[in-house]
Amino acid sequence: MARLSQRRSQRKDGARISQRPFRLLRSPYPPLEILSADQIEAIHLTSLRILEEVGLQFLDDEALEILRGEGARIDPESRMVRMDRGLVLEWLAKAPSQFALEARNPQRNLVMGGNAICFSSVAGPPNCSDLDRGRRPGTLADLQELLKLAQSLNAIHLLAGAPVAAIDQPAATRHLDVYKSYALLTDRVWQASALGRERIADGIAINSISRGLSLEQMSGRPGLLTIVNTNSPRRVDGPMLQGLMEMARHGQPVVVTPFTLAGAMSPVSLAGALALQNAEAIGLIAFMQMVRPGAPAVYGGFTSNVDMRTGAPAFGTPEYAKAVLAGGQLARRYRLPYRSSNVNSATAVDAQAAYESSMSLWATVLAHTNLVYHGAGWLEGGLVASYEKMVLDAELLQEMAEFLQPLEVSEDTLALDAIREVGPGGHFFGAAHTLARYETAFYQPMLSDWRNFETWREAGAKTATERANAIWKQLLADYEPPATDPAVAEAIEDYIARRRPELETNPPP
Amino acid sequence: MARLSQRRSQRKDGARISQRPFRLLRSPYPPLEILSADQIEAIHLTSLRILEEVGLQFLDDEALEILRGEGARIDPESRMVRMDRGLVLEWLAKAPSQFALEARNPQRNLVMGGNAICFSSVAGPPNCSDLDRGRRPGTLADLQELLKLAQSLNAIHLLAGAPVAAIDQPAATRHLDVYKSYALLTDRVWQASALGRERIADGIAINSISRGLSLEQMSGRPGLLTIVNTNSPRRVDGPMLQGLMEMARHGQPVVVTPFTLAGAMSPVSLAGALALQNAEAIGLIAFMQMVRPGAPAVYGGFTSNVDMRTGAPAFGTPEYAKAVLAGGQLARRYRLPYRSSNVNSATAVDAQAAYESSMSLWATVLAHTNLVYHGAGWLEGGLVASYEKMVLDAELLQEMAEFLQPLEVSEDTLALDAIREVGPGGHFFGAAHTLARYETAFYQPMLSDWRNFETWREAGAKTATERANAIWKQLLADYEPPATDPAVAEAIEDYIARRRPELETNPPP
Repeated sequence: MARLSQRRSQRKDGARISQRPFRLLRSPYPPLEILSADQIEAIHLTSLRILEEVGLQFLDDEALEILRGEGARIDPESRMVRMDRGLVLEWLAKAPSQFALEARNPQRNLVMGGNAICFSSVAGPPNCSDLDRGRRPGTLADLQELLKLAQSLNAIHLLAGAPVAAIDQPAATRHLDVYKSYALLTDRVWQASALGRERIADGIAINSISRGLSLEQMSGRPGLLTIVNTNSPRRVDGPMLQGLMEMARHGQPVVVTPFTLAGAMSPVSLAGALALQNAEAIGLIAFMQMVRPGAPAVYGGFTSNVDMRTGAPAFGTPEYAKAVLAGGQLARRYRLPYRSSNVNSATAVDAQAAYESSMSLWATVLAHTNLVYHGAGWLEGGLVASYEKMVLDAELLQEMAEFLQPLEVSEDTLALDAIREVGPGGHFFGAAHTLARYETAFYQPMLSDWRNFETWREAGAKTATERANAIWKQLLADYEPPATDPAVAEAIEDYIARRRPELETNPPP
Repeated sequence: MARLSQRRSQRKDGARISQRPFRLLRSPYPPLEILSADQIEAIHLTSLRILEEVGLQFLDDEALEILRGEGARIDPESRMVRMDRGLVLEWLAKAPSQFALEARNPQRNLVMGGNAICFSSVAGPPNCSDLDRGRRPGTLADLQELLKLAQSLNAIHLLAGAPVAAIDQPAATRHLDVYKSYALLTDRVWQASALGRERIADGIAINSISRGLSLEQMSGRPGLLTIVNTNSPRRVDGPMLQGLMEMARHGQPVVVTPFTLAGAMSPVSLAGALALQNAEAIGLIAFMQMVRPGAPAVYGGFTSNVDMRTGAPAFGTPEYAKAVLAGGQLARRYRLPYRSSNVNSATAVDAQAAYESSMSLWATVLAHTNLVYHGAGWLEGGLVASYEKMVLDAELLQEMAEFLQPLEVSEDTLALDAIREVGPGGHFFGAAHTLARYETAFYQPMLSDWRNFETWREAGAKTATERANAIWKQLLADYEPPATDPAVAEAIEDYIARRRPELETNPPP
């Protein structure tokens, strides 16, 4: 087949890594429902009783004032907030069930909600690692390399928080350098840190500059995300509340994610952990609507279990998969967009990392997770951002994206004529029906090696992890920054030049 | 926690590998339906047209006589058989929708059909491999080691065909040694080779001896499996037909599995490949019912794609996952038990092996596959049975088994009192609710390592594959053969002693 050989040689000569194009995903399949409607209702009702009878602690006076004003019962001493179910459900209903997320490049715009599925890069690890340089605390240079990688991988729809902490930068101003890196090295939706009002305000400012919008314009156009974690059980810290209120007031979406590891920060039984997760998520999203009705919010789930022998968190477990699926059912009950994560507990980019991530990823997709957080690069329970894992995960994401393309059944694809044409025991390689379709018929992997054993051995017998190492190096070598209007880049520099001394003088919390 | 430390030290001292118990599985979740009823009907109708208008070639005169007698149209020259849809559907309806599969140990009895899910060991590779001895052609000693491993892994419900070919044994009598190995080294359901009537007859004889049944008794009690592959497209070889008829006449189940790789043995479009798979599967199962109405049969699917650049088969791909799910819908349309497989194309037991197997396994389980073939040990597109992969897969199977345990929602598991008891930002480790449940609350893995990086590194920084290597050695060291009545063992030896010279004199095809 002449055309096949031609294509093969192009792949060998070309410097670029073969990838599927960037594309928006919608699940054509029904979500997997592992709980009955009655069971979901029981969790829902328990979470309402938690909010009514037990309460959430809000560690911020401004938030407490707002809650008091809307009729919540506040214990001033303990700052415990109790909300009747009517109050919770009335406000919760004001959150939009779906919203658009605008990137600075309109081709990277996303939809959050319904059956749309978006994959993000990893966020938050203090360390990074790759096969060449080993495991190390993150620096701004590492963070920028990981952002370039994420930008280069078409399977990644948006950037989550900092892919690794830039430990080498001062804590008070680090977020400015991170935001600038997002804004100039990538063209996708990104995320600000909800650690206090000021870090959010800087994110909103830099995001608006990069999108060429005034703050007023931006207010009606969501395009910056943040994650607000509760300090489970039943506590919401002050800086997080300040960040949440700042985002709400600017019409930017908050992903409210209780950190409810079963057996540690929540009950050892999954149903109880989900009830607590649900109470914290809907309680906080209801509060966000009090700050600004209609503010975009995402229901986040992060319920997994701990290893009861050591207390270490475990991810990508059967319990995690169930929690992700049940969480999707709960989010759909409130018609809220849903976030869960591609997580694992492996220490190396090995078979365990792959099967735990696969367990997580299948659950996220079957749950109709709208925002699959930590989609690529997360390792070691979130302590490490791995370069090789980012490539490995991008392969998993691409495969899942392909799985979400509907199987076409038509006279053409049923191929009765081709079946008639090829004799018993014959071969379809040469059939006209095959020749017309073979180039695009099947998924072509980026990482998987399907060569036979001898060829694979002669080529160095490289494992998938070793091949991932070569791929990220190639991607970094091929990286080109997205085009940026010099005036925009200058405005970002100006903003940062003004803010840096302010933050150095008055460090945020 | 004193009890936790005690349990940890027990694990260190104990020689046995920690495993979940052997248990029957039923999916409590709805199957994932990726095609609409209309689309399934279109595939069904196309397959009926293939059977009516195009035909299947049956390369066996006895089979042709039976088909002619029931009204099929036969072309004597080409031995092409065309069956009207009424004929196909009338006979197909006689196949049972569910049946019991009896092992020699009643505790290993299985159910085939409905929402029951059974995992088998790998079958058929010519080679085996492990980290110590490398990749090599199989021997009877390797086969027996792999059988001992499968017997030792509780996640494996039944044995498929020979886990590796015993290349060192003469082809004419090899099956006798394989059957004896199943019958004496394991206590589970096993499989005979459908390569001709004689190999099946020997399997039935040895199986009946091992179960203490006469052939008449066995006839109503399925307990021996075989796989019949078509020689796709549209050809059924003579020895396979002889094997199928012999099984049907003895009331033993046949797993009819067309070998329809899209782009090679079937159309490049998945819908066409499924139409051909369906025609061959239901055509042959209908024929089986003509041989003996009510004979137990399983609808097998093996549709995947080839790599169009090299022609190599690809497994564990997005296309494979879709074919598995659509195949499940087709089997359910006919109320037939369903078989699909845990397959991959990786050359090493690495991350690719894990993510391709995970892709396959998730699809099999979501499809309500009753017989998950090649459940543990398959590598390199079926060219290799891997010792480490068998352990890795057993971990995946255990995790899936755990995922299939329903999430319990009750007043007890909703844990409102525990949530009330633990203060904001507090910890559930010490809660009474936790202490009463922590020992059995969560899945404990056999292979996954959840220790922190430092501990893992100090313990040798072993990858999952290296840990799997240690586990199979431990399992083989701990292996004990199941108790066998000496009279049964003697009867098997007698049978083989009589048959061996007969087969040496008149080798089967």
